[in-house]
Amino acid sequence: MAVRATHRARGICIVTPTQRQEDDAPEILSGVFSGQTTGTSIAILIRNQDQRSRDYSDIQDKYRPGHADYTFDARYGLRDYRGGGRSSARETTARVAAGAIARKLIASEFGGRVLSWVSQIGSIRATIEQPELVTLQQVEQLPDGSPNFVRCPDYDAAAKMVELIDEVRRDTDSIGGVAEIVASGIPAGLGDPVFDKLKADLAKALFSLPAVMGVEYGNGFACAELRGSQNNDIFTSEPSADGPPIIRTASNRHGGMLGGISSGMPIMLRAAVKPTSSLARPQPTVTRDGTETSISTKGRHDPCLLPRFIPMAEAMTAIVIADHWLRWKAIRTH
Amino acid sequence: MAVRATHRARGICIVTPTQRQEDDAPEILSGVFSGQTTGTSIAILIRNQDQRSRDYSDIQDKYRPGHADYTFDARYGLRDYRGGGRSSARETTARVAAGAIARKLIASEFGGRVLSWVSQIGSIRATIEQPELVTLQQVEQLPDGSPNFVRCPDYDAAAKMVELIDEVRRDTDSIGGVAEIVASGIPAGLGDPVFDKLKADLAKALFSLPAVMGVEYGNGFACAELRGSQNNDIFTSEPSADGPPIIRTASNRHGGMLGGISSGMPIMLRAAVKPTSSLARPQPTVTRDGTETSISTKGRHDPCLLPRFIPMAEAMTAIVIADHWLRWKAIRTH
Amino acid sequence: MAVRATHRARGICIVTPTQRQEDDAPEILSGVFSGQTTGTSIAILIRNQDQRSRDYSDIQDKYRPGHADYTFDARYGLRDYRGGGRSSARETTARVAAGAIARKLIASEFGGRVLSWVSQIGSIRATIEQPELVTLQQVEQLPDGSPNFVRCPDYDAAAKMVELIDEVRRDTDSIGGVAEIVASGIPAGLGDPVFDKLKADLAKALFSLPAVMGVEYGNGFACAELRGSQNNDIFTSEPSADGPPIIRTASNRHGGMLGGISSGMPIMLRAAVKPTSSLARPQPTVTRDGTETSISTKGRHDPCLLPRFIPMAEAMTAIVIADHWLRWKAIRTH
Amino acid sequence: MAVRATHRARGICIVTPTQRQEDDAPEILSGVFSGQTTGTSIAILIRNQDQRSRDYSDIQDKYRPGHADYTFDARYGLRDYRGGGRSSARETTARVAAGAIARKLIASEFGGRVLSWVSQIGSIRATIEQPELVTLQQVEQLPDGSPNFVRCPDYDAAAKMVELIDEVRRDTDSIGGVAEIVASGIPAGLGDPVFDKLKADLAKALFSLPAVMGVEYGNGFACAELRGSQNNDIFTSEPSADGPPIIRTASNRHGGMLGGISSGMPIMLRAAVKPTSSLARPQPTVTRDGTETSISTKGRHDPCLLPRFIPMAEAMTAIVIADHWLRWKAIRTH
Repeated sequence: MAVRATHRARGICIVTPTQRQEDDAPEILSGVFSGQTTGTSIAILIRNQDQRSRDYSDIQDKYRPGHADYTFDARYGLRDYRGGGRSSARETTARVAAGAIARKLIASEFGGRVLSWVSQIGSIRATIEQPELVTLQQVEQLPDGSPNFVRCPDYDAAAKMVELIDEVRRDTDSIGGVAEIVASGIPAGLGDPVFDKLKADLAKALFSLPAVMGVEYGNGFACAELRGSQNNDIFTSEPSADGPPIIRTASNRHGGMLGGISSGMPIMLRAAVKPTSSLARPQPTVTRDGTETSISTKGRHDPCLLPRFIPMAEAMTAIVIADHWLRWKAIRTH
Repeated sequence: MAVRATHRARGICIVTPTQRQEDDAPEILSGVFSGQTTGTSIAILIRNQDQRSRDYSDIQDKYRPGHADYTFDARYGLRDYRGGGRSSARETTARVAAGAIARKLIASEFGGRVLSWVSQIGSIRATIEQPELVTLQQVEQLPDGSPNFVRCPDYDAAAKMVELIDEVRRDTDSIGGVAEIVASGIPAGLGDPVFDKLKADLAKALFSLPAVMGVEYGNGFACAELRGSQNNDIFTSEPSADGPPIIRTASNRHGGMLGGISSGMPIMLRAAVKPTSSLARPQPTVTRDGTETSISTKGRHDPCLLPRFIPMAEAMTAIVIADHWLRWKAIRTH
Repeated sequence: MAVRATHRARGICIVTPTQRQEDDAPEILSGVFSGQTTGTSIAILIRNQDQRSRDYSDIQDKYRPGHADYTFDARYGLRDYRGGGRSSARETTARVAAGAIARKLIASEFGGRVLSWVSQIGSIRATIEQPELVTLQQVEQLPDGSPNFVRCPDYDAAAKMVELIDEVRRDTDSIGGVAEIVASGIPAGLGDPVFDKLKADLAKALFSLPAVMGVEYGNGFACAELRGSQNNDIFTSEPSADGPPIIRTASNRHGGMLGGISSGMPIMLRAAVKPTSSLARPQPTVTRDGTETSISTKGRHDPCLLPRFIPMAEAMTAIVIADHWLRWKAIRTH
Repeated sequence: MAVRATHRARGICIVTPTQRQEDDAPEILSGVFSGQTTGTSIAILIRNQDQRSRDYSDIQDKYRPGHADYTFDARYGLRDYRGGGRSSARETTARVAAGAIARKLIASEFGGRVLSWVSQIGSIRATIEQPELVTLQQVEQLPDGSPNFVRCPDYDAAAKMVELIDEVRRDTDSIGGVAEIVASGIPAGLGDPVFDKLKADLAKALFSLPAVMGVEYGNGFACAELRGSQNNDIFTSEPSADGPPIIRTASNRHGGMLGGISSGMPIMLRAAVKPTSSLARPQPTVTRDGTETSISTKGRHDPCLLPRFIPMAEAMTAIVIADHWLRWKAIRTH
């Protein structure tokens, strides 16, 4: 999967509904020799070719609404106004690179797979009958082979999403959405039972991404309205050729984790992503010294973060699963 | 929950809608001397007085639907069937004890406060106009001084919730819900900017609690349908007696965190809690060797976890904030 | 030391040259069920039965020379004068308990063994030709079956050490020494190559014990005077029944670790332990407010820490090796 | 101190008794903006300009005596024979760069200083009356201003050390030694009282460096032969202009740490460094498949590692102290 993740990370070959072109060629500094990992930490350097101070010079004293300008200032006592610094989504490029390695490990060690797509933008919701059967091609391509700009595998919804994004862009506005992430082929038994529950580490990983306002798995917030008899999944078993029977659940409302430990069923997550904070229209704000002013962001900002969020979500999910796989290898005795 | 009881007991009688009576007297083993912390780790021992093997003996080979029986087995290759072991909510008693200390630190160091309540059970939703003004007394007591069983400060909603819980209990069923957590008086600047974002650590902490299926903050999942112009909070300033102006936001859709760092506005979280998995009615399942069987849980299980979830949510939120406060103390230079 | 006593007690009576009698019965609070570990953390509670405030009341404002009284005060702004708190060697009892579990793991997983003994007290040095062949019985028993008070397997040296300890006790003085630790049967490959080198983690573990002033392995400080041609160990190989040849070294000046990674040869460590700081004779010192005074320690303090240091050293060594074994299990692919 | 540490790290301006010339220009990738740290992690890239595969091609199947070739192979199942990989001392260049930042922090926050020098090579020992008064200039320069090749501030000893190194080089051999490290101006109170004792973290840091076979502080191994009355340091006090009296010790046999916590007295450490393992003379060894062979290292290896060890030792000491300073800032209340 390295190629794909790299591909997505590069941004050049990825046709996303963005007006930016980034040329971030990754350089592997260590850890790989003759096409094989050596055990040394794999360091990958991706230089930010796109950073130009002049783009940001007029905002250096203003706090952009919805951005981390003020909170960084409160934390560090200074502002590094160049592109948002570590609160820029460009920071996540490195995570996608790391995720590519985690995905290779997941695939080669136990045949697992992590895939994400856009399931909602504004009020347009995708209808996906069998999430565990969605393919990478469906996420990336339309039936005619052209790029699936919004990375939504429900093509009707995808078309409406593209329209909606165009509309909010013309409106100098932006729009939020929801991403779905499915990890399938993950063995039962991953996750620590108390603080480092698999669901807890996955949630932390997704919340560590910019703009994420909510995370749920399985039935998620919908379970608030359900009764136990509606929400529980019934255990079933099927014989295996060799060894004990395979335990499964008849449904997957639990989203692949029980007690914070993977159950062997597909892990189903959703993340809510807020609308882009940078707007081309003027927004009122204040400067560092409290003076009222207004700001309108120049430069090239996507009016919807979701399509570019997909590789990040996949990467963070893969990294957590790979990590818990290693932890499980250390302790398991059976 | 003994420590919370102690903590809240000053003038308030806590009676939760449970049929269990637990006598968990905490014993402080270390770290406190002459009423003062000594710097030594504070160890608090709370023995589980309630554990009786006979209550669980008939389930020792059956996987209870919605429980962690199977996943623990998959992880460790054995079942410790006594009360769910570490997947039992009783494990969280120790967290509440630790949280009591974190809350003291938050209160004494910067006058902060963490408060949680039930905002939804089934389809009954509380209406709270100003969440940051809710008081502990409102959560714990009804206007006539009697206990607020469901810990919902909207008393009309609370009455309906009590009815609903009674109904599902009679039905040998259970019901889910949502808890709201507000941390106010938290200084701006807490949270690491990349992986240990404050939102990420809070989400991990809440997801580390049993039965949590979703976490959101600020506008949460609702932001998927919003435009940036609707979701952004405008910065404002007000003069301070001494020193630089105070920066605030006119609204708090961002839930008190921007870029994963606290903004000084109240931190607003919500957690979705699934309906109790243990049901008094028979549910189909399988045994360890795959044989089909059915199970109905005897013993005393609350049909709704929410009221007892509140102290856990407060504790985990307080622990994370206290921890990030200490981390901030280490690095701040201003 | 109760657990070690239990551990070693199979046929061996442990009597250490101490005048204290401690009744520290360990209670296993969690993690063991039906004689098996469950995967839950194993919590062992050992209450300090011996603590009596009155023993320490006259020292509560004085800084004992060589003790941590002043540094704890500098760190925490207070003194918990009861028995030295966490700087008391009694704190290590819990480590010995944890070490007993690590030793079981080492023995059952790969047949490894950790053994320590006293190799020097004052200027009396033991002569041990083949350290990897020393047995637990030699450390604990004299040839006539009576207890080997000083835990030195060179019986001539042991007798002189006992005499020396008696002499310094009569003198109201104390004496230092050196412990030797040998871990044999440890597989090659344990240890991280940079910061968490096995030698680094072992050194940290030993230095985390009270009174340790120095740690060395293999040739240790003696290598300062050696040439490379004298210090290098030559690699050799011997055929194995199945699989690749076994690589060994002809000598073991490298103490079982190269590049911080175990080589498969016995791991040989030495730790220098300072003379007991508490003396029955008066020593000049100052009080918290700087007033000059003198102090003579009442109560029962061993004039030589070495014999009781042995179980601690074994425990910490075993814990580090068990930990690195688990880490290796996680990453190894061959 | 950045200049000096960088200076030493670069190797070009550092005239050490080496025949290698390394041109490793550090590039600061992040964390510094307008001459100020931003709170972002400071990433410094130093490319290894010197690596040439052909230098190592003839050793790719042979295990070099004293090197980590075999143990890396045992750990990872492969050999990255290019220059020893992470077991090469060149890895420590990055540590020296990080140490330069830690030293700046130590100097600016509390006026502390870390200095190291060579105190022994072979059987030649330096005599330094007052270690806490040694200056950087004495370490780096001879009285006539020429470079002090061996970094020993006892110039008579230094001259003999240079001769000895020349002698062993002519002999195609190598020689070990001891470095002394003094950290002065360090406040009392640094260090955790149990596992993360300051002495434990310093020992781990020094043992994480290549070729270190032993670490001691204060009286070190010499205390084995001492009585408590000889080893204890007496507390004294002196008035301070404002506030409580200053507590000191009359001597510093404890090496600046008691109970693992800094006492305010200079921290005195010594590290034993083994003779260079690579020798130009042939040494017998085996190949990966167990065949007997011999190896003589071509290329440019210092016959004594000590002079180049000094910046590493300073860096690791400074990093640990800076880290414990930050930890102390987080918890201290007085």
